[in-house]
Amino acid sequence: MSRSIRLAVIPGDGIGQEVVAQGLKVLTAVLPQDVKLETKEYDLGAKRWHATGDTLPDEELASLKNHDAILLGAIGDPSVPSGVLERGLLLKLRFAFDHFVNLRPSKLFPNTGTPLAGRPEIDFVVVREGTEGPYTGNGGSLRTGTPAEVATEVSVNTAYGVERVVRDAYERANARPRKKLTLVHKNNVLVYAGHMWKKIFDKVGAEYPEVTTDYLHVDAATIFFVTQPERFDVIVTDNLFGDILTDLAAAVTGGIGLAASGNINPTGEFPSMFEPVHGSAPDIAGTGKADPTATILSVALLLRHLGYETEAARIEAEVAADLEARDGTARSTDEIGDALAARVAG
Amino acid sequence: MSRSIRLAVIPGDGIGQEVVAQGLKVLTAVLPQDVKLETKEYDLGAKRWHATGDTLPDEELASLKNHDAILLGAIGDPSVPSGVLERGLLLKLRFAFDHFVNLRPSKLFPNTGTPLAGRPEIDFVVVREGTEGPYTGNGGSLRTGTPAEVATEVSVNTAYGVERVVRDAYERANARPRKKLTLVHKNNVLVYAGHMWKKIFDKVGAEYPEVTTDYLHVDAATIFFVTQPERFDVIVTDNLFGDILTDLAAAVTGGIGLAASGNINPTGEFPSMFEPVHGSAPDIAGTGKADPTATILSVALLLRHLGYETEAARIEAEVAADLEARDGTARSTDEIGDALAARVAG
Ligand SMILES: CC(C)[C@H](C(=O)O)[C@@H](O)C(=O)O
Ligand SMILES: CC(C)[C@H](C(=O)O)[C@@H](O)C(=O)O
Repeated sequence: MSRSIRLAVIPGDGIGQEVVAQGLKVLTAVLPQDVKLETKEYDLGAKRWHATGDTLPDEELASLKNHDAILLGAIGDPSVPSGVLERGLLLKLRFAFDHFVNLRPSKLFPNTGTPLAGRPEIDFVVVREGTEGPYTGNGGSLRTGTPAEVATEVSVNTAYGVERVVRDAYERANARPRKKLTLVHKNNVLVYAGHMWKKIFDKVGAEYPEVTTDYLHVDAATIFFVTQPERFDVIVTDNLFGDILTDLAAAVTGGIGLAASGNINPTGEFPSMFEPVHGSAPDIAGTGKADPTATILSVALLLRHLGYETEAARIEAEVAADLEARDGTARSTDEIGDALAARVAG
Repeated sequence: MSRSIRLAVIPGDGIGQEVVAQGLKVLTAVLPQDVKLETKEYDLGAKRWHATGDTLPDEELASLKNHDAILLGAIGDPSVPSGVLERGLLLKLRFAFDHFVNLRPSKLFPNTGTPLAGRPEIDFVVVREGTEGPYTGNGGSLRTGTPAEVATEVSVNTAYGVERVVRDAYERANARPRKKLTLVHKNNVLVYAGHMWKKIFDKVGAEYPEVTTDYLHVDAATIFFVTQPERFDVIVTDNLFGDILTDLAAAVTGGIGLAASGNINPTGEFPSMFEPVHGSAPDIAGTGKADPTATILSVALLLRHLGYETEAARIEAEVAADLEARDGTARSTDEIGDALAARVAG
């Protein structure tokens, strides 16, 4: 039997190029010999925008669709007005490919620099809604630039959109040993969206009697992230709260250099997209200082999504073993990629 | 010369009662003899709502207006549907009295249990916008409770509202030794509101050439709160981001038991309102475990707002000295209040 993976690669901006190269190195090393890996690289991001004004043309979107998955490095550069590439490329992909599950696991690996005293046990996953909420681009500005300007941002939430992501989160919680699911929202202020989320969360919960549930306001959740992160198992939340909480989660688990994510379309209608949580970090681009581990762990999520569970688990285990072994020594982007490629091939 | 303070007191729910009693004890002790303190207590909160269905009737709002300031304990109880008291009482007060500066200082006091390793220096203040953003109650729900429900929340932002709070933040930054102001928003996604905030921030900044400025996306800001909190001096941000960041700030500075806040109407047209950042904590109400320090520090903010700078500074200094002296020993609500009342009177 011969198997294949058609992978679209968007290195993007800044350190995106460097970390994606390491991700591909590890992917190639871990795949069984009978799996044919076909990659196609897409030139999208700041450079392309400066040259042509394009963010993500329709033909490229159509071409990207013909893949099993997408690996993305990072998008964004200070030379491009804030929002142009984020909305025109990154969020366009998430919305066009209906990535309604934005999956962001947080785990405290050995020898990583958590800022938390006492190194609490941390092993949770945030299921962030990816296609609704304040990210829809609804809103506008009236009398722009005048003292009478009014700017609005509309958070759009549908029962359809909330129920599917909540159900996905219950499935994930039910499959984990602790079987605990926490809903994070702000339903004491955002009463329309918040109450709908809570009602649907309770309704779907009736189908998962073994899952223990909890509700936290987003402000309170940030407190527990730093004082009691061990209390979390699976968290489900909206697009914006998920954005904020997962950066905080990355920080408490030793840094954004380790935080992986998957933008998943669970129905399989569209390719899912895997990317480190970190940005393009233009300040360290080209210096060899970027940690490719977040991208390599995103490759593990990609493999798991495509059914290569053994290979996904091997990458995760080797990342942990490698961090344990290196005992905090600093290494370059390449060195980390090489070490992990050697380990997973072994 | 005889002076007076007409103070409205809203103890509210749960531990609100207990902590406000200590706040008043310290206020009475610190005030010079010639200052006449008149207090009027308002029975508002969960009990009142259960008894009468009232959250904040117009007559009481009018009566509250006839005061120099308001001291509030905490609002909210699990027996009341989420949002009823928050929107109908707490936010109604903030909006009706145009509390556009929600001032929340964060300082790492001695012997407090910060979860951060190495106890970094923390001394910053968040100027949270208090009358706009996602807190306006704009939005709605269509086909409520059906699978076709759509729920929206509208963040409303005006140049008028943003400019006044940004200007207040520049004034505060300019008056501090480090003179640094950071704008926190999410202008790569919330482009309408975010760009307006940034433009106004830059425009007003031209009037404060001595203030160093910085911009951070809210997700990145949470990272720095735990990895590098010493980088912050004054932060200005919108209502929701401010809500989230100040709970996180409270957590990293040793807990919500120490976080004070002022809902300030700088024009003086309406009474300003001072309250601890924490909630009503029904789980510990009546046990004597509530820490009244946040309320006592809110009394300091209240005194500063009314022009009693010496007394405000004395409370703050004595809180620090007391924490230093007690060396982490646990004390009851009353014991802390008594100790601080004795110190400030001294
Ligand atoms: C770059 C930005 C648009 C993006 C987001 O807000 O989702 C990023 O912060 C993330 O978390 O992937
Ligand atoms: C109780 C709630 C409405 C309130 C808020 O969200 O502003 C609280 O969290 C706060 O920070 O004062």
